[in-house]
Amino acid sequence: MSLIVQKYGGTSVGTPERIINVAKRILETKEAGHQVVAVVSAMSGVTNRLIELADQVTGEGKPTEREMDVLLATGEQTTIALTAMALNSMGAEAVSLTGAQAGIETDGVHTKARISNISPEGVHEMLDEGKIVILAGFQGKTADGKITTLGRGGSDLTAIAMAAAIDADLCQIFTDVDGVYTCDPRVVPDAKKIDEISYDEMLEMASSGTKVMQSRSVEFAKKFGVRFEVRSSLNNNPGTLVREESMSMESVVIRGVSLEREQAKVTISGVNDLPGTAGKIFGAVAEANILVDMIVQNVSVKQTGKTDISFTVHRDDVEKAEAALTPVLAELGNGVTIRARDGIAKLSVVGIGMRSHSGVAAEMFEALSNAGINIEMISTSEIKITVTVSEEQIDEAAKVMHAAFGLAEA
Amino acid sequence: MSLIVQKYGGTSVGTPERIINVAKRILETKEAGHQVVAVVSAMSGVTNRLIELADQVTGEGKPTEREMDVLLATGEQTTIALTAMALNSMGAEAVSLTGAQAGIETDGVHTKARISNISPEGVHEMLDEGKIVILAGFQGKTADGKITTLGRGGSDLTAIAMAAAIDADLCQIFTDVDGVYTCDPRVVPDAKKIDEISYDEMLEMASSGTKVMQSRSVEFAKKFGVRFEVRSSLNNNPGTLVREESMSMESVVIRGVSLEREQAKVTISGVNDLPGTAGKIFGAVAEANILVDMIVQNVSVKQTGKTDISFTVHRDDVEKAEAALTPVLAELGNGVTIRARDGIAKLSVVGIGMRSHSGVAAEMFEALSNAGINIEMISTSEIKITVTVSEEQIDEAAKVMHAAFGLAEA
Repeated sequence: MSLIVQKYGGTSVGTPERIINVAKRILETKEAGHQVVAVVSAMSGVTNRLIELADQVTGEGKPTEREMDVLLATGEQTTIALTAMALNSMGAEAVSLTGAQAGIETDGVHTKARISNISPEGVHEMLDEGKIVILAGFQGKTADGKITTLGRGGSDLTAIAMAAAIDADLCQIFTDVDGVYTCDPRVVPDAKKIDEISYDEMLEMASSGTKVMQSRSVEFAKKFGVRFEVRSSLNNNPGTLVREESMSMESVVIRGVSLEREQAKVTISGVNDLPGTAGKIFGAVAEANILVDMIVQNVSVKQTGKTDISFTVHRDDVEKAEAALTPVLAELGNGVTIRARDGIAKLSVVGIGMRSHSGVAAEMFEALSNAGINIEMISTSEIKITVTVSEEQIDEAAKVMHAAFGLAEA
Repeated sequence: MSLIVQKYGGTSVGTPERIINVAKRILETKEAGHQVVAVVSAMSGVTNRLIELADQVTGEGKPTEREMDVLLATGEQTTIALTAMALNSMGAEAVSLTGAQAGIETDGVHTKARISNISPEGVHEMLDEGKIVILAGFQGKTADGKITTLGRGGSDLTAIAMAAAIDADLCQIFTDVDGVYTCDPRVVPDAKKIDEISYDEMLEMASSGTKVMQSRSVEFAKKFGVRFEVRSSLNNNPGTLVREESMSMESVVIRGVSLEREQAKVTISGVNDLPGTAGKIFGAVAEANILVDMIVQNVSVKQTGKTDISFTVHRDDVEKAEAALTPVLAELGNGVTIRARDGIAKLSVVGIGMRSHSGVAAEMFEALSNAGINIEMISTSEIKITVTVSEEQIDEAAKVMHAAFGLAEA
């Protein structure tokens, strides 16, 4: 008998029929002899309808975040009740728990709270009584009883955190894809599903465009050593197991290729290469709530002591970034200019094997060059190399990379 | 400064626009210098939609009551969040509380729980901080944290119980009528709104067809001495104050006339007049969950020792009652028969003044007789006299009674 945490997203529980299907799957797991905690999200569409209601009652004003959490938490509460009663009507003993009831305690940052503690005694007790526990994802409560929500990817986080708290044997994240692929199969038709991937690789994939899960859940899983499987709720195919690094993983140099479109490059030229310059620039950008990804600074020209700083942002954020930076430019010295250009995309290769294999970057650049694809910016981490290319060439670039590193045969 | 509890029903908060109107009314009360706790129901229609979802996921099976409560409680939780954020967007400091958060503790009888205790410290604290408290009606939690709902009329009960717990100066029940009338104005056009009515009169009116409030809330208010006002959320007219009996109230013999249509009379004839007979009959009826109202038993005929027992039920329950009683008939002796007839209605006159005035019944019967209205059954309590008449004559009977007791001039 294993203790298994399962998580079903909003699409998987989007209609009464789908809830029944999810209930059947939960029951199968239970009948296979396991203890089951199933974390469910709000039915797809519900959260948007609630937000719309909030907008209607507040008019010009922005809904208060405390009340937004009370409102949004009803979405998952609805799903847990429906899922538990569906199971009950199949003859199974299932009970629902809200985040608060399950002892999920968070800080008080409404709409994006962080889990601070889980008291799993109640969940253990119910499991010991032979019950299936249906747990509301995405929500918790503060120490003084306020309802909070965990923000984007919150239901995954609930599943992984609960799996850690009750020391589950496995955590299964059910979604609408079969797992993590070596590349987006819509771009690279011979992309393969990855059987096992390390936390770090998963994090780098997530941060470079492979949107299977939010980084924060993966980070949490890594921190607490929770193995989890990403798999489809639509079939019974095995998914991708995300786990701590193993020796055998290193033999694969590149685990996967990620791409991210709709990027723009912002370049600030003629900047004095002095301490604090970058701080001023990225402080202003951060204050405007703009997510910056790659940052590249050239070595300053000796004679002038001036340099260029470039970074990428989503193309929709370009205007906001320019507006945020304009007041800063004057502080950076005379002749400082700002330029932005969209129509670029990011291509990343990720793999922990990279650490023990030199020459990966060279191989990557050569393959792209041979295919006539020009590289604009380069940025590297220990297990990832990212380049920007023209958005028109990104699909071709992905195929070239996938082939160059033999990912279809992996 | 007074401490006021207000309650707004599902129709009053049925749309975002109406929620904004309710918020305005709450804010006006606050700005008049009062402390306000506002109890709100689920938006009208929401509860039915939730029940429909429950039916869809459970198919043939009946939804488990524990989960039904978790599901239904989301209805009020949605309204409290929306109402609080509407107030916040008007610049008011308002906070929402679920039943559980407000310390409303109940027994564990899901879907029709009874309030066992209220810990009002949290509510007091918020009020002392100058906040408006928006409280979810209809719900509470058990001592061990399960979500419960209070059943029909539950939001009224929440308001009155909370008013008792925090020792409010006034409890206002906002509804879609202006208050309690001397008779249904659709039947008796010169019916007048009653300014003050005693708990007992209100109870008798409620139990005899005047469906402004459920009896349980009135009983609770009486038990804890909570004065409350029934008034309209659509205008600013004063409503009807329901309160403990006062000396002056006795001067009015009849406070009001109630009517209830769609009744049926079930008669069991030839019953042996022995101890336990009525118990068998009404035990069987109660087990079938049929609400019985008037019960009349004639004195038994000396020679035979046999008697007739009649009672009224809603006409929709006639078949169920006959089915429930058929197996009992044989036990009651040979020749026992059952007959049912619908097309009757009940007419009640209610007033605590009746206690000190004799001859009310005679006056009633005479007035009806003069109008050519035949009486079938008669039943009396200390402050109420109920008769059944043909359903066709009920409107005329109500007018006759209203005039006979001078209620239009009251």
